[in-house]
Amino acid sequence: MERPRGTRDFGVSEMSRRLAFEALLEEQARRSGFRRVATPVFESLELFTAKSGPGVVGQLYAFEDKGGRQLTLRPELTAPVMRAVANEFRQDPKPLRLSYFGPCFRYEEFKTGRYREFWQYGAELIGATGPIAEAEVLALAVSMLEASGLVDWEFKVGNVGVLRAVLAALEISDVVPEGATESPMASAMRFLDKGDDEGLEAMMEASKSDILSTLASLQGGLEVIDEARQLLGTIAGIDLSALDDLAITLNALSNLAPSPPTLSVDLTVARGLDYYTGMVFEAQVPELKGEGQVLGGGTYRLLHLFGLEELDPCCGFGLGFDRVLLALEKQAERLGREEVVPDENSGPGVVAVIPFKVPVEEVLPLLLQMRAAGERAVLELRSRKLGKSMAWADSIGAEHVIIIGPEDMENGVCTIRRLSDGEQTTPAMDGVLEALQGLR
Amino acid sequence: MERPRGTRDFGVSEMSRRLAFEALLEEQARRSGFRRVATPVFESLELFTAKSGPGVVGQLYAFEDKGGRQLTLRPELTAPVMRAVANEFRQDPKPLRLSYFGPCFRYEEFKTGRYREFWQYGAELIGATGPIAEAEVLALAVSMLEASGLVDWEFKVGNVGVLRAVLAALEISDVVPEGATESPMASAMRFLDKGDDEGLEAMMEASKSDILSTLASLQGGLEVIDEARQLLGTIAGIDLSALDDLAITLNALSNLAPSPPTLSVDLTVARGLDYYTGMVFEAQVPELKGEGQVLGGGTYRLLHLFGLEELDPCCGFGLGFDRVLLALEKQAERLGREEVVPDENSGPGVVAVIPFKVPVEEVLPLLLQMRAAGERAVLELRSRKLGKSMAWADSIGAEHVIIIGPEDMENGVCTIRRLSDGEQTTPAMDGVLEALQGLR
Repeated sequence: MERPRGTRDFGVSEMSRRLAFEALLEEQARRSGFRRVATPVFESLELFTAKSGPGVVGQLYAFEDKGGRQLTLRPELTAPVMRAVANEFRQDPKPLRLSYFGPCFRYEEFKTGRYREFWQYGAELIGATGPIAEAEVLALAVSMLEASGLVDWEFKVGNVGVLRAVLAALEISDVVPEGATESPMASAMRFLDKGDDEGLEAMMEASKSDILSTLASLQGGLEVIDEARQLLGTIAGIDLSALDDLAITLNALSNLAPSPPTLSVDLTVARGLDYYTGMVFEAQVPELKGEGQVLGGGTYRLLHLFGLEELDPCCGFGLGFDRVLLALEKQAERLGREEVVPDENSGPGVVAVIPFKVPVEEVLPLLLQMRAAGERAVLELRSRKLGKSMAWADSIGAEHVIIIGPEDMENGVCTIRRLSDGEQTTPAMDGVLEALQGLR
Repeated sequence: MERPRGTRDFGVSEMSRRLAFEALLEEQARRSGFRRVATPVFESLELFTAKSGPGVVGQLYAFEDKGGRQLTLRPELTAPVMRAVANEFRQDPKPLRLSYFGPCFRYEEFKTGRYREFWQYGAELIGATGPIAEAEVLALAVSMLEASGLVDWEFKVGNVGVLRAVLAALEISDVVPEGATESPMASAMRFLDKGDDEGLEAMMEASKSDILSTLASLQGGLEVIDEARQLLGTIAGIDLSALDDLAITLNALSNLAPSPPTLSVDLTVARGLDYYTGMVFEAQVPELKGEGQVLGGGTYRLLHLFGLEELDPCCGFGLGFDRVLLALEKQAERLGREEVVPDENSGPGVVAVIPFKVPVEEVLPLLLQMRAAGERAVLELRSRKLGKSMAWADSIGAEHVIIIGPEDMENGVCTIRRLSDGEQTTPAMDGVLEALQGLR
């Protein structure tokens, strides 16, 4: 009986880390007013084929239910959340600030950092548009990665509206020609996203492909925006409002969130997905190499793909929960740091309660009293030598032990020992809680 | 694009309730030293057919992956957790105190309280046996239901060891006869569990079925144990140690947990599952009628069914997360209570930040300052009439609004208003956090 390939079991330490990381992300979302929603683990297959085309089926855990309905385990969470918004949350006051977290499934070759069951945390701002709305979403993304303790991550921000405006002004059509699968504009964006200069040159005059290659070569921080403005300002009839918006967004971001370690403006990043319409962004962690994208998102229109009435363009992102944890682990190794994320069990520490040569029943009222006060009181269930019980207490990460022997029982006292240094005290049974505080 | 039948989307209020309930259960588990583990959403089909027989397939979301492996969405969590224990946590120091929470899937007719995707919270104590270990598990179950705010729930506790001992002493065999599907002992337990006296009478002498019917008729609290001891003490060669254990367990429970509203001892409850070997228990909520079982568990042996080396018998339970929430809702209605479970967002309340006739960019530093201090600062993204912005603030549940107008901006101040009574103050921008505290 093995677990299915590409999936994982999470033991207590790993789960404790994951719950702590989830809580950390949730806290950042909470501060910006984003609130959690949830959707089913499986959906209609057509939800994802509508979004990504029929080719996506090969990467899905698709199945038929007994009623012959085509279902699939969800490969991502944006489409399900937008479906839920359209079906059920449409009447809620706008803008909606939603967050979500859950397992997603992808049927693909198993390798490091790519599991078949993986977790995604994400956020969507729905029903408000403009550069400040986009900055709010960017700021949440940055705050989450900063709060996670990740270092040296690379943040890339662009705006597909800029590229679309350039291509339109260069008269590269966005209409799909008879018999073709994509428009010239889509082809050009794909070539630029991949850095394929030859593909670009083959499809347009050199004067045009030169401008695009130069645009792609602009690299750096905020100064890229002014450089682009100079480069593009010479094109007749060009609409540079997307570039102006990006400048406002990035300026607002610097007021709304801690600075990311590196921020690069890249005006040809297109994220390979047709439904993005404005600002787009990605975060990369060099340690993870090819699997280094830990977060990605942007401004998009999705609902029309499902045949649903469009809300304003939405802006959101998905965060690769497992990848960030993996990156934190690798960075902790490299930097010699001990704790990767704070242990959610770190609150009041574990107290191991050891009845020694007394019937275990006798200590139950003490346990109830401690637990009712919020203490984490773990009972030694086996009668055995004190050394063995102490080793057990250590193995469960206890900070203190309470030992009750036969004489203690008679005198109504017990011994509390702090395991870090052996410091101990012998309070009356009804003074255990105070005595414990005194030893903290 | 509809969500699949029998599944649900959870909006922000419902999700807030669910997260709060999960946190409440987690807190109870934490106090008793139970720690969270997690397993995949899908498993090998044979894990569940080994546990429950091939008949279970009809209730499963089973599918084949592209490698031809038979998989299924998990219908429950005990079997996966025990598989993980056997495969991966076997070397961890015993006893293991594990808790778990996640979605499970059951393909069946959709009706109230029975969803095709539903959530289970559970706990298992592994590697420690005896009546006190069983009391620890019972106490956790009781503490969880009590902490949830549920009232009038019925708790039924038994011990299948008692029934097995009676049947053994009455010489009802536990061997499956050639050509039969179950042993006479299993048939008798099934009849008793269902209250089918005729079935019982048909399979044994009247003197024997009389004893069993009388045993089944014993109802009440702890006194049932003494009544049973009198009834059964007359049977030659009977081993009553399971009855003694149950007495110790129930006595320990009364020291370890708040008293459940009603506790009934029922010595013929068998929970319909072969793998229980000792103490068994169930919690029912009358409001939910046929779907009223909100929690169930007991002491069991499971690993041998998977061909895995047995650990000590384990003791655990599953809690129907959705059913408890449904019961709380119904009880809140009946009792006229307002809050069902505390809102996890109830901490520091929402503060709506409204730039009024000033560029929204100007208030971003204030937002960053507030969020960095842990405040929940939600920005009004749309420039519009103050009345509309105030209505929006109300719609998101804001407790305070901060309004910044053009004159405020010039003077470096803002207005903070408490929405419950209109009380307001006009602090300097760098005194907003203190002023907010003053209005709480």
